[in-house]
Amino acid sequence: MQAEIIAVGTEILLGQVVDTNSAFIARGLASAGIEVYYHSLVGDNADRLTAVVTQARSRSDLVVISGGLGPTKDDLTKQTVAHLLGVKLVEDETAMAKIHQHFLTTGQKLTPNNRLQALYPDGSLPLKNRTGMAVGAFYQAPTGADVMLLPGPPSELEPMFREEALPVLKHAYQREEYLVSKVLRFFGIGESQLVTTLSDLIAQQTNPTIAPYAKVNEVTLRLTATASSEAAASDLIDGLVTLIRQRVGNYLYGYGDDNSLANVVVHGLIDRKLTITAAESLTAGEFQSTLGDIAGVSAVFPGGFVTYANEAKHALLGIPNAIIDTEGVVSAATAKRMAEGARQRLDTDLALSFTGVAGPDTLEGQPAGTVWLGLAQRGQDPQAKLVHLTGNRDKIRARSVLLGLDWIRRTLGI
Amino acid sequence: MQAEIIAVGTEILLGQVVDTNSAFIARGLASAGIEVYYHSLVGDNADRLTAVVTQARSRSDLVVISGGLGPTKDDLTKQTVAHLLGVKLVEDETAMAKIHQHFLTTGQKLTPNNRLQALYPDGSLPLKNRTGMAVGAFYQAPTGADVMLLPGPPSELEPMFREEALPVLKHAYQREEYLVSKVLRFFGIGESQLVTTLSDLIAQQTNPTIAPYAKVNEVTLRLTATASSEAAASDLIDGLVTLIRQRVGNYLYGYGDDNSLANVVVHGLIDRKLTITAAESLTAGEFQSTLGDIAGVSAVFPGGFVTYANEAKHALLGIPNAIIDTEGVVSAATAKRMAEGARQRLDTDLALSFTGVAGPDTLEGQPAGTVWLGLAQRGQDPQAKLVHLTGNRDKIRARSVLLGLDWIRRTLGI
Repeated sequence: MQAEIIAVGTEILLGQVVDTNSAFIARGLASAGIEVYYHSLVGDNADRLTAVVTQARSRSDLVVISGGLGPTKDDLTKQTVAHLLGVKLVEDETAMAKIHQHFLTTGQKLTPNNRLQALYPDGSLPLKNRTGMAVGAFYQAPTGADVMLLPGPPSELEPMFREEALPVLKHAYQREEYLVSKVLRFFGIGESQLVTTLSDLIAQQTNPTIAPYAKVNEVTLRLTATASSEAAASDLIDGLVTLIRQRVGNYLYGYGDDNSLANVVVHGLIDRKLTITAAESLTAGEFQSTLGDIAGVSAVFPGGFVTYANEAKHALLGIPNAIIDTEGVVSAATAKRMAEGARQRLDTDLALSFTGVAGPDTLEGQPAGTVWLGLAQRGQDPQAKLVHLTGNRDKIRARSVLLGLDWIRRTLGI
Repeated sequence: MQAEIIAVGTEILLGQVVDTNSAFIARGLASAGIEVYYHSLVGDNADRLTAVVTQARSRSDLVVISGGLGPTKDDLTKQTVAHLLGVKLVEDETAMAKIHQHFLTTGQKLTPNNRLQALYPDGSLPLKNRTGMAVGAFYQAPTGADVMLLPGPPSELEPMFREEALPVLKHAYQREEYLVSKVLRFFGIGESQLVTTLSDLIAQQTNPTIAPYAKVNEVTLRLTATASSEAAASDLIDGLVTLIRQRVGNYLYGYGDDNSLANVVVHGLIDRKLTITAAESLTAGEFQSTLGDIAGVSAVFPGGFVTYANEAKHALLGIPNAIIDTEGVVSAATAKRMAEGARQRLDTDLALSFTGVAGPDTLEGQPAGTVWLGLAQRGQDPQAKLVHLTGNRDKIRARSVLLGLDWIRRTLGI
């Protein structure tokens, strides 16, 4: 069983956008035990797309194509592939109903080209687009390679691939053996340190395999085991997880593809019925916004403060100007005062604060990346922690938010 | 003049690393007026690499290959390509001296495989690796397509491409014509509506060409013109921009690859010396965090409020519980009170508020996606605006933030 991945889109061909879909699909196919030997990328051009798909079908069993399912006249993947397969395009009623509903809700005008998004090659299994409008498709060809069509925007492709496509592929290409995989998520340890610490386990890897993957600000390990039953494969995984936890359990914050430090922290707070607030300077609301990403957070998060300017620290949190003048705004004293001020004002169990230098300029003579975090807990003295971060403004702010979340995680003993 | 890009590496084939090199190279080639029609990606496998390079050379004039120049036994790009070109590998003295120096400095042992990094196909121009050890190469073939070899790590490839490869390519493929491109950025108009409104201009597109691209929550148009001088190409672009502005100028918020609605708004505020704050319920700090992304925002943004719970709206903004009880938290009255309350507390010129239903659950009987925005301006009565948004929690919040930014943009008359 061998697959090939094709990305379609002039904007990725020209490099205006980096194609992350092909890597995402490759990881998913690997998790289903499907080997990939080639990726290709073409623009929105029917002739070249036809040539690439034809070649791919000649050397692989499955061709997964992303992009070009949208409503503009550039989007011609579906038409081209249907033509190549010798089938018509037919309408998916569910997708069409969703398109109608969207235009009804937003009051925008439904133009004819928008209807194209509900079409798929006749004889395919349509794949539901939960986060967008263009329907996907899986075509099991009577002769020659099968073809899967997926939308281009990652926000649509990723859920569709995970929820619709992968189960269908696993079912279509059922193997004698069962494959179980588990993702372990780490924060606070770099990829090279993690790999070095686990080097003997990784060197011995056969079953389960261990695939490290470094994302921005976190590292994941995907363990994949095969066995004659699902239970036996799970047992292999569990055994290895135990070994890994013994060595680096302190950095392991959670499991699963669709997880995040914020998710773990918010559910930890909800389970413990602990409320939280924040006072943010350099992060300017990014920490609170990250909490807000998690559905259900309102049970533990009443709101909080963005105190960018010193006047705001004074006016909203009651920090005396004298403290800021003598200790500095980027200081342990200010971080503690911010956290405790926020906590008291909203009467929460916990509060975090962030004050530091996002850059590019220095502040109070301190270089960009100097960040103080403060933590206030009901009935305890507030604490502060200094970190020195590197990278641009975005990176420094994002990393600060994660360090704050991780501090809460460790405080909760998760 | 037509080029093709190939990335080599099993870790990118498996999706463990996203290939950013191909996009980087594509942008560079476009800037030199070299067209790219295909990208391909193969693992560290001599047979498949040979097949892909052979095909690429059969249909393009230049093949740019990244990856596989390193010292490990997986790295076989140079050997494979030299074999295919029918030339030997020869040693670059400068690169070899650098390798010797590195091992001398670090005290590590120089193993024979490290010497491989100084080799390049005979008859090529070696390309210096300022930030690494593997030398690149540009081979102008006596017959058939030219080949360029570049290292895989972006930290080595990017400087080498910019400093060594691009000047060489521009010189090798000198053209008679100049290429100028400009990106126009739109908010508040869908891709399909934009394309429909401009369909006659797009249909006539030859020079400049018009390439629409829908990103999450915005649409861009890239206009690209060629002419015998840079000024003439710019004139062609300017003429088309005028036509486009006449039709959809109201939605055009700015220009350039590296721009955003937040950037335009923050610089608009800075230019006009107007300060801003916000009170955020469903967006939970995302609007303020978006302002915080822009360096220099501290001049106009003192901070603000995240008022997720009703108690916080009362405690931090002084909104009477009676208003929330009678009018509802998702209402024009609450939105106006939130904006004006925030504005007064921090004494700013402008304030925005966001209150609505992020979902997945309904609130006060209103469905997810129901959002009220409030706008307070010094010396004026606050206003409120109702929108109905679709999509998941993330999309509803992100879209709300952009609608807020766009309201400020229009208020400033940008």
